[in-house]
Amino acid sequence: MPLPVPVPPDGVDPAWLPPAAFRPLGSRRILIRGSGPLVDTVHGEVAEACARSEGRVVRGPGPGAAAFDLVLEVDGVGGETFTCGRRDGTTTVTALGGAGLLYGLFHVVRLGEEAFSGEWAPETHRPALALRMLDHWDNVAVHPVMGQVERGYAGGSLFWADGRARGDLDRVRSYGRLLAACGINAVAVNNVNVHETEAHLLTDRIGEVAAIAAALRPYGIRTHLSVTFAAPMVLGGLPTADPLDPAVRAWWAEATRRVYEEIGDFGGYVVKADSEGQPGPFAYGRSHADGANLLAAALEPYGGTVHWRAFVYDHHQDWRDRTTDRARAAYDHFVPLDGEFAANAVLQVKHGPMDFQVREPVSPLIGAVPRTRLAVEVQATQEYTGQQRHACWLGPMWSEVLRFRPQGPEGPSVGELAEELVAVSNAGDDPFWTGHPLAQANLYTFGRLAWEPGADPHRLLDEWIGLTFAPVARPTADGVRAVLDGSWRTYEKYTAPLGVGFMVQPGHHYGPSVDGYEYSPWGTYHFADRDGIGVDRSAATGTGYAAQYAKPWSQTYESPETCPDELLLFFHHVPYGHVLHSGRTVIQHIYDSHFEGVEEVEEAVRMWASLAGLMDPARHARVAERYEEQLRSAREWRDQINSYFFRKSGVPDERGRRIC
Amino acid sequence: MPLPVPVPPDGVDPAWLPPAAFRPLGSRRILIRGSGPLVDTVHGEVAEACARSEGRVVRGPGPGAAAFDLVLEVDGVGGETFTCGRRDGTTTVTALGGAGLLYGLFHVVRLGEEAFSGEWAPETHRPALALRMLDHWDNVAVHPVMGQVERGYAGGSLFWADGRARGDLDRVRSYGRLLAACGINAVAVNNVNVHETEAHLLTDRIGEVAAIAAALRPYGIRTHLSVTFAAPMVLGGLPTADPLDPAVRAWWAEATRRVYEEIGDFGGYVVKADSEGQPGPFAYGRSHADGANLLAAALEPYGGTVHWRAFVYDHHQDWRDRTTDRARAAYDHFVPLDGEFAANAVLQVKHGPMDFQVREPVSPLIGAVPRTRLAVEVQATQEYTGQQRHACWLGPMWSEVLRFRPQGPEGPSVGELAEELVAVSNAGDDPFWTGHPLAQANLYTFGRLAWEPGADPHRLLDEWIGLTFAPVARPTADGVRAVLDGSWRTYEKYTAPLGVGFMVQPGHHYGPSVDGYEYSPWGTYHFADRDGIGVDRSAATGTGYAAQYAKPWSQTYESPETCPDELLLFFHHVPYGHVLHSGRTVIQHIYDSHFEGVEEVEEAVRMWASLAGLMDPARHARVAERYEEQLRSAREWRDQINSYFFRKSGVPDERGRRIC
Repeated sequence: MPLPVPVPPDGVDPAWLPPAAFRPLGSRRILIRGSGPLVDTVHGEVAEACARSEGRVVRGPGPGAAAFDLVLEVDGVGGETFTCGRRDGTTTVTALGGAGLLYGLFHVVRLGEEAFSGEWAPETHRPALALRMLDHWDNVAVHPVMGQVERGYAGGSLFWADGRARGDLDRVRSYGRLLAACGINAVAVNNVNVHETEAHLLTDRIGEVAAIAAALRPYGIRTHLSVTFAAPMVLGGLPTADPLDPAVRAWWAEATRRVYEEIGDFGGYVVKADSEGQPGPFAYGRSHADGANLLAAALEPYGGTVHWRAFVYDHHQDWRDRTTDRARAAYDHFVPLDGEFAANAVLQVKHGPMDFQVREPVSPLIGAVPRTRLAVEVQATQEYTGQQRHACWLGPMWSEVLRFRPQGPEGPSVGELAEELVAVSNAGDDPFWTGHPLAQANLYTFGRLAWEPGADPHRLLDEWIGLTFAPVARPTADGVRAVLDGSWRTYEKYTAPLGVGFMVQPGHHYGPSVDGYEYSPWGTYHFADRDGIGVDRSAATGTGYAAQYAKPWSQTYESPETCPDELLLFFHHVPYGHVLHSGRTVIQHIYDSHFEGVEEVEEAVRMWASLAGLMDPARHARVAERYEEQLRSAREWRDQINSYFFRKSGVPDERGRRIC
Repeated sequence: MPLPVPVPPDGVDPAWLPPAAFRPLGSRRILIRGSGPLVDTVHGEVAEACARSEGRVVRGPGPGAAAFDLVLEVDGVGGETFTCGRRDGTTTVTALGGAGLLYGLFHVVRLGEEAFSGEWAPETHRPALALRMLDHWDNVAVHPVMGQVERGYAGGSLFWADGRARGDLDRVRSYGRLLAACGINAVAVNNVNVHETEAHLLTDRIGEVAAIAAALRPYGIRTHLSVTFAAPMVLGGLPTADPLDPAVRAWWAEATRRVYEEIGDFGGYVVKADSEGQPGPFAYGRSHADGANLLAAALEPYGGTVHWRAFVYDHHQDWRDRTTDRARAAYDHFVPLDGEFAANAVLQVKHGPMDFQVREPVSPLIGAVPRTRLAVEVQATQEYTGQQRHACWLGPMWSEVLRFRPQGPEGPSVGELAEELVAVSNAGDDPFWTGHPLAQANLYTFGRLAWEPGADPHRLLDEWIGLTFAPVARPTADGVRAVLDGSWRTYEKYTAPLGVGFMVQPGHHYGPSVDGYEYSPWGTYHFADRDGIGVDRSAATGTGYAAQYAKPWSQTYESPETCPDELLLFFHHVPYGHVLHSGRTVIQHIYDSHFEGVEEVEEAVRMWASLAGLMDPARHARVAERYEEQLRSAREWRDQINSYFFRKSGVPDERGRRIC
């Protein structure tokens, strides 16, 4: 039986699955072979596309494949792999399981008319990473200051409303469909900072999680839950949450048994422990491996995993103390534990050592725990990259991370070292899903990179443009590509320079404040004085962070002479007159890049204006409105950063431009 | 009939009216002559004191005054004036009205045993200022970020709870009693930023205001209400709030008539218009005089007044624009309107040109509107002076303001130019009324200075100590005086230097952030660069603000050579090496004062610790706990300010102390 395609509420943007994207497929004769719920989902998609575009679909063994333009068939024991080839006028997708068939279907959708022309030998597609996950920092209860979604810039939660799981889950079904179409297969449905209300999702409110899981399941997505390490105390009334305490272990075992009673394919737990005020095993003198293994043991009988976040550092640091270095923390905490984590415990590591800045080096932890299952975490929600008021397509940044080789050119890439890729979601109940319509490209690119970490991100951007603006005309495609392609580097140019990071307003993290975190307990410093700027993280004279890398990176980063320009101030404190590889001094680079960044935004604004009339007017208007704010904000960044450093250094701009 | 003395809820601190303060009076034979509600209040006070200390009270013409230790009598047409003398063993207080008798009673309480020894000729006491008012920035509805009381540091509102006026008004009655005892005779019961809920207090919810007014009335306090200028639109459904529109005038007349139906002695309206986002007459091309006179006309038939706040400035200023000067705004807006305000319209002017910083010059507006009724506004709530976590007794600052002579040594003082004195209240439903128990001294001193602006504030502090710690022993009196006497200057030393102001964290305004408001739209800048610091407000080369003063002040402030040290950076941008009148350079002054300020807090902490066991343990403990935070915060201020200026100037401390 075909499963009807979910219908999102009126006014919700179709994102990268507009009806037009299905037209090439929908006008064909299609045979579907196989059974099972995900095949029913595929059947529903095909049936709807055919109903709309006068194609034809047959389910079952069929009257001979040659009579069809497209054959979608399951032939195997299960899984996400599929092959796709074309011969004698028939395109054939053969999948090992229902999930593979679903991904194969969306592969055909992406190919568009190309899927039905020429001939080619069967190609096998399989995801490089087994788990491709979105973490939602959604709360059930709305926080008076942070709102409902922590670091959310796209309205309220897709899952939770009015203090409970949404009753009408059509929007969630549509969301699952979008995620499947870019390859995502797991979602954690609540904030890693687990507050009081949300703690109960694990026990008495698990039914609400089950309802969400049921809505996501038809598109191959498993549901995960963030839990508090203190649950045995908070929910179970035990006097301790000590991971080695038998009563605690029994409590988790029983709680987990009940979770699986409700959600048979439950994915597992996500835990932020001993971090930024969250409880954890340190309180009992236990290690993070002890903590993670406690939950892993409870999940193991059911095939679940625990995602244990490695974001552990001292957030009550004294800014006067220059020896403590927050960048070192994850490595220092977790490398000694390598080999101690259970097989179903996954260490979830942020891609950089700090916190999702526009530019960071790759976390040295990623190459340093060979006996630990690793998930690499990126941030689709644009906390530090413009909060979905700025267009900032992060594909190139994520791709650089995934292609980085921690052990040098001969070693494996991050995309090969990681078993999983996780993003903090940028979606909410906004009509455009992501606040800024162009931020949809981040969500899409993330999913596709998780499937294929070595992919050229620019190709994925073109995929997204082709689907989203289908049927896309050349000027639109060129225009959208032009405004997004370099937008990450543009954003980098007008914000904190040369890898030094932060310089944002405290708390909400939007807009410039050069000293906003300079004298704070958060460990985020630039140490600018009248002579120079940057953090000395060398082994020779600094915090020693550079030595956490394997060679050759430890050597590359150790010296300002070899350190890449874009990371110079992350690794070194240098005089304003220090000459970069680019040939410019640091201070002149600051001025130049800030003027350039604003000019690039001005150019994007003009380009976007030229696209009026070439797309859905509501989408065009929303982006145009965001660009107004981006331009204002970029100018504010430019002027504050340039003024700050001019006041401090006293060095005038070589080109005599006005610095306020 | 004696009115029973209000009993505050259990656990509420008696502040400056502990039973012990009434003991000298309560053990005497006392005759009360006169009638009326305030005489009943006096009678109740005396009866309770006598009941407790075995004295005796007679009401009526009495059997001959000579048989009494104290005669309290009304002999006149009304008013607040009283005389007090002593002859032949009888102390006599003769008042023109019930209010005068009440103030006379508290005068006798303050005198203690001295009231009953020796002889002295009758002295007449009358308040220098007719209106001595507290503005409460209390909201009915609790704001998710600001809390209930805007800039309140003493718990919730005394007047409003659970979305309406408190049902149990005993606490309000006790509050009124405390206020009367220091001379305050008017209270505005809601925030000058009038939000949606609070707008309705004027009309359908006036009954709640009436209940509060009834609770305050027995202690001679009239109630005022903050209203929104947009009320005719918000509440009346009119299409405009134009002050010259006949329908608008009629609406205000009718609304005011109804207010007086409910509250016969209603004091009037308080209005913040065209300020920080509040609506006002500018929207209709009308002047502030037009706006104020609209409300004055409505109030006039009933003897009410409108308090029109002069806090009008551009809070969307561009920091890049050095010509706009927020300090100029009040003068520029209101001097041209001098003479245009109605007789019952009072222009309420903040004491300084900015916003209640620890050090500001006196507002030049105060001496410049001779044909306008003036109220001078100070801030008892310690928004910028430690938020009642720091001990900072503001008496000396207010006294300096009140004794300042805007037209030079021969001209009148501010205390003589002002007809009224207003403070933003620092009280809330905290058990100690003011959060920090020692902040009670600010409330007390304010009331007493409003009665007698020329008083030596240190004498008033001693009064407060004598009452609050009654019966006070020498070590306690000396200790409390030692920690409070210089606390304002101590606070000044470790925060923003030399009158430059701000340098606080944006939003909540607690703790240091040197550049926190430096690139903001609020007009609060220090312009520090690697060479120097300060705002050039001279007429010759700066914003011209200094020329708003009459001579000799315009000349004094115009030049860095004659400008007082403590205001230097408010008026001038000078190099770090500029030598102050003190003989120190600006940069060395910054270092020295910050080290000294912290040392003075350390000394206060030690002094306070030595007072343990000499007073109510709860009060001692609360203050000790606040001192812990004050010391931590003062060190943070010292280190951030010193580091900031060392990094910027590169000038080392002459004395080689550690700067982080």
